[in-house]
Amino acid sequence: MDKIISPFETAYRLKEHDNFLLITHRRPDGDTIGSAGALAQGLRELGKTAYVLKNPEATPRYARFISDYLAPDDYKADYVISIDTATYDLFPKNAEEYKGSINLCIDHHKSNTFYAEHVCLEASRASCGEVIFDILMAMSGSISSISAERLYVALSTDTGCFSFSNTTGNTLYVASLLIEAGAPNKDLNKQLFRTKTRGRIKIEGMLSSGLEYHFDDRVAISTITNEMMETAKADEDDIDDIAALPSSIEGVCIGITVREMTSPTDCKVSVRTRAPYDAQAICEKFGGGGHMLAAGCTIEKTIEEIKDMLLLVLEDVM
Amino acid sequence: MDKIISPFETAYRLKEHDNFLLITHRRPDGDTIGSAGALAQGLRELGKTAYVLKNPEATPRYARFISDYLAPDDYKADYVISIDTATYDLFPKNAEEYKGSINLCIDHHKSNTFYAEHVCLEASRASCGEVIFDILMAMSGSISSISAERLYVALSTDTGCFSFSNTTGNTLYVASLLIEAGAPNKDLNKQLFRTKTRGRIKIEGMLSSGLEYHFDDRVAISTITNEMMETAKADEDDIDDIAALPSSIEGVCIGITVREMTSPTDCKVSVRTRAPYDAQAICEKFGGGGHMLAAGCTIEKTIEEIKDMLLLVLEDVM
Repeated sequence: MDKIISPFETAYRLKEHDNFLLITHRRPDGDTIGSAGALAQGLRELGKTAYVLKNPEATPRYARFISDYLAPDDYKADYVISIDTATYDLFPKNAEEYKGSINLCIDHHKSNTFYAEHVCLEASRASCGEVIFDILMAMSGSISSISAERLYVALSTDTGCFSFSNTTGNTLYVASLLIEAGAPNKDLNKQLFRTKTRGRIKIEGMLSSGLEYHFDDRVAISTITNEMMETAKADEDDIDDIAALPSSIEGVCIGITVREMTSPTDCKVSVRTRAPYDAQAICEKFGGGGHMLAAGCTIEKTIEEIKDMLLLVLEDVM
Repeated sequence: MDKIISPFETAYRLKEHDNFLLITHRRPDGDTIGSAGALAQGLRELGKTAYVLKNPEATPRYARFISDYLAPDDYKADYVISIDTATYDLFPKNAEEYKGSINLCIDHHKSNTFYAEHVCLEASRASCGEVIFDILMAMSGSISSISAERLYVALSTDTGCFSFSNTTGNTLYVASLLIEAGAPNKDLNKQLFRTKTRGRIKIEGMLSSGLEYHFDDRVAISTITNEMMETAKADEDDIDDIAALPSSIEGVCIGITVREMTSPTDCKVSVRTRAPYDAQAICEKFGGGGHMLAAGCTIEKTIEEIKDMLLLVLEDVM
């Protein structure tokens, strides 16, 4: 059998085993956690033993359901699966021991390094949850309401409630079947996409009021200081993806967020662009990296110094 | 034939006629405009003449495509269809003359008053666009990329990019077929849901910073003054649905927005609640109305006076 296997072949292989351990990736998100929860659930419904390795990093608020699947300390699996985890670098610290002996990786990232014995990789999918859906359907021909709920979390969080550019016809098709199978999309959407914490609302308000525009309003710069975080009583969860805010403004081609970290001269810079502007090229000038439309770097200067440095670089770009 | 007809019967009836005029509702939104545009497009593709009556009220920015379908002044139709328009009250001013002679109403509101000769009403649908989809498929068995684009606007705007509680499995299923048919969901989502005007960002910032919490933070009150609107250079489009903001905060059960209108003693109050709190009951105390979870009223007092009045009423409610 080839290294790369289809969801159908994956289903066949899973049916042959009985004791599963599922591994989620570092900085766990809704897709890795939702996918692992749904697969563990589906395997258990077939009478198998399936657990998820506890991820040492914080689980998002909305993915607390994973506690139903966490492996006991002495659990011994005969088949180990990594979920939505493209490379060894993305393994959580407590999964080091499994490197070299992963039986199967289920993923949708084209950056996958094929470290596992078998890889079920569907790189055209927006979420790993869509791949899991195909596997569950191939295994049992239907999907329970519990698995459907987990997978809805995976699909919807990885696509920003179907609004990100990765969303395909397949994403929406699978989501429609999940709702028919009983995924409580109304409640989940309310919780995931239509509720903001007080800290988030406060920080967004400060950010919006403090926006600076440059280069005929095509560049917008926002700043987050530690003082702002304290005033807003905001934590890391509260500012998740907040760097998307400046670049979401009509007419803005480059949105920059400068955030004070441990000290006033240790700042994280996030750059988001619209094509053809290249965020990666900008961040590489400061030793950072990323993608064409989203990149970042760390600069050990004050916010004001960093803004001056960025504006100088942007003069060439704009 | 009965008054209420199915999408299939509707398709049959449409095929029998040749000159169509489509009417959209007052305060036109993406659903009425997208649905009318898609139906006019589909009818034209079958070789028929189809126009949309110009809506005298402002069309949302994203629905400018309707200009391709606007009826000439001297146009005479032999079949007049109202789209997404539940009652005569919702007819735009220039459609008065058609009252009493509407051949067909295509709608999804259960509040429909059956004023038309025939009514194609599918009250379980989140958007009128889903009903139009069924009719177009029944008429020609496929859907063009242009009609698909119009319908994607209808479905996505009426469901907040599939995040509102009206979204069903059918909504997502139809949306998946629209994408397969060529609807440019990436570009449309960016424009419709991931871009904010500077005015909007500014007003949201001011609103967030000025939020007041009461009753153990279960009530949040925001205010919009004319001065704020001027400072933010914001217009009506910019504050569309902004009343949803206070009630989107975690833990808030009742979100209230008080907005100064023509003068400082003429204010519009919007109330959004989470069950079991009844927004309608609150607004009825001030002569307003609406629904259980979203209602409004007009009060001729200053913002401060109104806040005191509301808090007094809320003492009984909370």
